[in-house]
Parts: sequence; structure tokens; C-alpha cells
Amino acid sequence: MNTPTLHRFANSRARFWLLALLLLPVISLAAEVLPSWQDGPSRHAIEAFVTSVTREGDKDFIPPAERIAVFDNDGTLWSEQPLYFEVLFALDEIKRMAPQHPEWKQKMPYKAVLENDQGALATTGTKGLMEIVGVTHTGLTSSEFTANAQRWLATSVHPRSKKPYTEMVFQPMLELLTYLRENGFKLYIVSGGEVAFMRAFAEEVYGIPPEQVIGTTFSSQFQGRDGKFSIFRQATLAHNDDGPGKPESIESIIGRRPVFAFGNSDGDLQMLQWTMAGKGRRLAGLVHHTDAKREWAYDRKSNIGRLDRALDQATRDHWVVVDMAEEWNRVYPGDPARSHP
Amino acid sequence: MNTPTLHRFANSRARFWLLALLLLPVISLAAEVLPSWQDGPSRHAIEAFVTSVTREGDKDFIPPAERIAVFDNDGTLWSEQPLYFEVLFALDEIKRMAPQHPEWKQKMPYKAVLENDQGALATTGTKGLMEIVGVTHTGLTSSEFTANAQRWLATSVHPRSKKPYTEMVFQPMLELLTYLRENGFKLYIVSGGEVAFMRAFAEEVYGIPPEQVIGTTFSSQFQGRDGKFSIFRQATLAHNDDGPGKPESIESIIGRRPVFAFGNSDGDLQMLQWTMAGKGRRLAGLVHHTDAKREWAYDRKSNIGRLDRALDQATRDHWVVVDMAEEWNRVYPGDPARSHP
Repeated sequence: MNTPTLHRFANSRARFWLLALLLLPVISLAAEVLPSWQDGPSRHAIEAFVTSVTREGDKDFIPPAERIAVFDNDGTLWSEQPLYFEVLFALDEIKRMAPQHPEWKQKMPYKAVLENDQGALATTGTKGLMEIVGVTHTGLTSSEFTANAQRWLATSVHPRSKKPYTEMVFQPMLELLTYLRENGFKLYIVSGGEVAFMRAFAEEVYGIPPEQVIGTTFSSQFQGRDGKFSIFRQATLAHNDDGPGKPESIESIIGRRPVFAFGNSDGDLQMLQWTMAGKGRRLAGLVHHTDAKREWAYDRKSNIGRLDRALDQATRDHWVVVDMAEEWNRVYPGDPARSHP
Repeated sequence: MNTPTLHRFANSRARFWLLALLLLPVISLAAEVLPSWQDGPSRHAIEAFVTSVTREGDKDFIPPAERIAVFDNDGTLWSEQPLYFEVLFALDEIKRMAPQHPEWKQKMPYKAVLENDQGALATTGTKGLMEIVGVTHTGLTSSEFTANAQRWLATSVHPRSKKPYTEMVFQPMLELLTYLRENGFKLYIVSGGEVAFMRAFAEEVYGIPPEQVIGTTFSSQFQGRDGKFSIFRQATLAHNDDGPGKPESIESIIGRRPVFAFGNSDGDLQMLQWTMAGKGRRLAGLVHHTDAKREWAYDRKSNIGRLDRALDQATRDHWVVVDMAEEWNRVYPGDPARSHP
């Protein structure tokens, strides 16, 4: 187009329609990226971060190989109340295994579990709980354990919502995982949950393959007999992937420092600190459970998912703190979307 | 084309040239895939495997997500004589650190290292060697250790070849890594070497990123002081990634069973067994060091990289056994290629 033609074009109705056509993909893209996130501070911070670090020539550009993003699981990608879902699995497994262990009827902490006596179970403390987790998670092969976890996930429902547990994942976080993946990030779960339990659903539900799931591990033993081989799960804790255990496993297993980290509790604090202490632009975020109506509301005084020191540091250092009640238009997949209250 | 036209075409000279043109890319591809591999049994087995498992509709087809290939490092991807290169690193580090440790002059096993007295060093046995590895690999932060390893790799040469160690990688294996990667395999190193030592060169030399390097690990401790954070390497072995430790770390870190595994010694046997015991088509391979002229010749009686039980099983089960002297046209990058002797 020469200049006079361009000038006429600029004044024509055609200009309006052409611009509309040109902008249409931009508008629909903006609307589609994080549709369950309110147009608020957390979404803005996340989009600004991703836009900068993926733009070639930007001073904050991060090469694809270094785009490591880490996520806690319990309370960050799915709910964790009234107890960590993996503990609910362990309690159900005790009941399933009970016929083979008649002595459990008279023996704590099993007796308390079988009688649904939460008060009595609580008196056995961490030791009792660890025994229940140990008995249900070890003393069997890795493929047997995975089958147990998958059976439970496929057949059990949450006591309050009556939904399968895998439907109690957070729709806004699923959208965040997709958004990051489409922008070249490699996503890891780094969680206190036991690694094989999380792998039993992480690929199908989150699209995160087994080799990108890091968690608490038990020792194991390779066994070969008559040409049959198995990995036997032993009752010895090998790594507790909580608190400082998170940056330790990140260094040991990933061997690179993440540039993006999301958690929801004090158990994630060291992972967020380690992420933010690297050079260049980074993002640390916390899911703040503020929504008693659609999910749960808890923070500084909760026994599950306590968020206290990490909330202080997040506030002081201007990390992203997602106000679930304010910033999420829906919580679970399939929930009706709401506009801002 | 109708039938008479087709018939004339089939008899024409044009047919020859068209066929030649159509086949040209196939012929040149075949020549380029594994150019340093003799046209022999190992190359045939590898190519037949990759062709089948990557062909949609083939009964042996493996979806890309499950194409996990694992490689030992010492003796499989690079040389390991007269001692594992990481041990040579540790011995050199003792000399570098000696000025800060005047007491070492009189203290075994350090005295033997400083005096280059291999006989005296040998008398200290595994215990002496472990002390030397411990002192050079722990008691510092992860970033300090990586800097030490990279400095040594950049400045040291092998005692016999006088080449940098990173040039003593096997050219045919580099080609195999590329071939597998281009066919959608995800490549892991699973080695008795310490994980951070291997990560110091694996990405640059093998194209294998840190998160796909699995090895022996020491315990570590996340440390935070005055807003500075580090991972401190402790003198406690966390995992010995040799023998049964290999399938154990594969299950713990990858969480999927590999479909392709390559090693060179009895320390790789369990990894190969675990790989081959899965369902569907799989490949296990061994590098057999048969080439005293271009590399080293050793197997059943070697202290480094002993290949005895694994060679028996490989023979019995028809695994791929690469006869280095016969089947590799060149050993190291930059070596002149030779035709078959």
C-alpha cells in the first residue's frame, strides 16, 4: 500500500473490522489462559512473569532447559482436609487388611482405626500414625503398592464432598500447570506425600509423568528369584520430603534450581526460599486457604497444612499469595464458575 | 496413472531414476545413523529394535512417554582405566587441598597419595579410598563441589592418552545417544559415579541434562543463614548406585521401568535384568572391552569394571554384546575411522 491508499484505509470502516480480526486471537487467548482465575493480583503476577521469562531478548529471559517449576501437592494441587488424603488411604487400607490380621482388633493403633475412634487414634500421636502408614505402605512390592493405591483412588470418595479424591484437585492450578507447560516449563511435584502414592494418579490427573514426581521415599530392595524380579518396599524411611527435605531432594534429583515454586504451608518454605535465592527473575507463590464455603479456611493454627512463617515471609518479600475465596472463580473441575462477589 | 501408463512407466528408464531418488534419503540415512559402528550384529540389533518400537502399528510399538533408556557411565559412555576417572579426580583434589592440611604429610592414606605411592595406597584398601572420596566430595556446598569438578575436568588430562577426560567418551555411544534421542527416547545415566560429579559434564558432553543423571549420592543439608541459602554435602552415603542400587534408584527416581539399558560390568547386571523382565520388546546391551590397542582389554578378572556374571547371562539370553575391537570403527571423537580389519 502506498501512503494515500494507507491513509484512506486508516479512515475506512474496513480498518475497524481488520483490527477486530487481528485482535480476536489476542483477546480470546487472554481469556483462555487462566479462566478460573479472577482478574486480580495473583493472575497478573503469574502472567507478567511467564511473559517476561519466555520472551527472547527480554532481560529476564530464561532458556527452556532452565524453566523448572516445582509444586507441592497436598493443599497446593488438591485439598488436604480433614486429613491428608494419603492418611485417609492408609486408614482405609487398615480396614481392608484387617481380616488377615485378627490381632489388630485388640491392638493399638489398629483397634482405634477399626472402631473409627478418632479420639483414641489421636492419643497414639505421630508414632501411631507412622505405624499405620508404615504397615500400609511397606512390606510389599512396588507394583503391589501401586495397584492398592490405584484401586483406592478409583473406588473411594471423600467423606464430606462424596467426590472421588482425584476430582478434588484445584481447577485453577490445573490451568496453571497447562499454562506453564505450554510455555516450555518442566513441571515437578515436590511433596511430603509418598512418591509412589502420588505417581498412582499424577500423570492422569495433572499430566505430570512419574519421573517428575518427587516425594517422601522408603528404602527398597531389588529382589530376584527364579528369573522374577521385583522392588520390595522396606519399612525404613529413606527421605522425608518436607521442609528442608524439599530443596535437598530438588538438588539431589533435579540438580538445577527451580525458577518457579508454589506451595501452601510452612513445609514449603525452604523450597520457596531456595527457589527465590537464585539469580534472575523468579516466582514464589502460596495458595492461601481462605474459602470455608467452597473448600476450607485455615492457616496459622491448623494442624494440617499450617501456614504461618511462610505467610510472614511471603508478605514481607511480596511473593504471590493466592486468596482462594477472592481470586478463584471455581475451585474444583466441574464447579460452576462465579463472577467476582 | 491408468494401468497401461503405469505399465510403460514400470519398464522405462525413468523408473530406475525415480527409484534411485526415492531411495537416496533412505540410503544416506542408514549410513548416517551410527557411522562409527561396524555393519555388524550389535548395530543390526539396535537398529531393528528402534525401528520396531517406534513404528506406529507395529506389534512392538512403545509410546514415546515409555521410551526410557538407561546408561551406565564408567566403561559404558567413557573409559574407566587405569582407575575410575572420578577416583583420579579425588586423588588430584587431595594434592590441591594438601597445603591447607599439613598433617596429611604424615597421615595415611593421604601420605601415600601425596607421595604417589600406589603400593602404599593399595594397602589402605576400600577404607582408604572411601576416606579420600569422602574428604574431596563432602564437607562443602553443592555449588563449591561443582566448581571443583568443573575446574578439574577443564584442566586435567588422562595419564596415558594425555587427552582431557571429556574427550575419552566413546564416539559410537555418543551416536547411539543421538539416535535414541531423535527417536523419542528419554535418556538417563544410571551410574555408580557420584551424581554431582557426572552432572558437571553430562549436559555438555552427552547432551543429558542434570535431571536425567542418577548416581551415588551423599546426604545433604539445606542451610540458611542471613538470607543466604546453600545445600551442604555431608559425609554420609545416602545411596550407593551400583548393582541392585541401580534398579532401586530407577524405581525411586524415574518410577517407570526402562525399555533399553546399556552397561559394561557386573555392577550393571541388575539394571539389565530389571529392564528385560518387563513386558513387551526390550533391549539390553553390554560394551565388551576387547580393544587393548585403541582402548583397554579386560573383563572377567579386572578389578575395575569386572564383567563376568553379566557376560554369562548376556550370552545365555542373547543380549547385545558389543565387541569393541570388532564393531567400533572409531573409539574416541576425532579418532580416524578405520574400515573393518
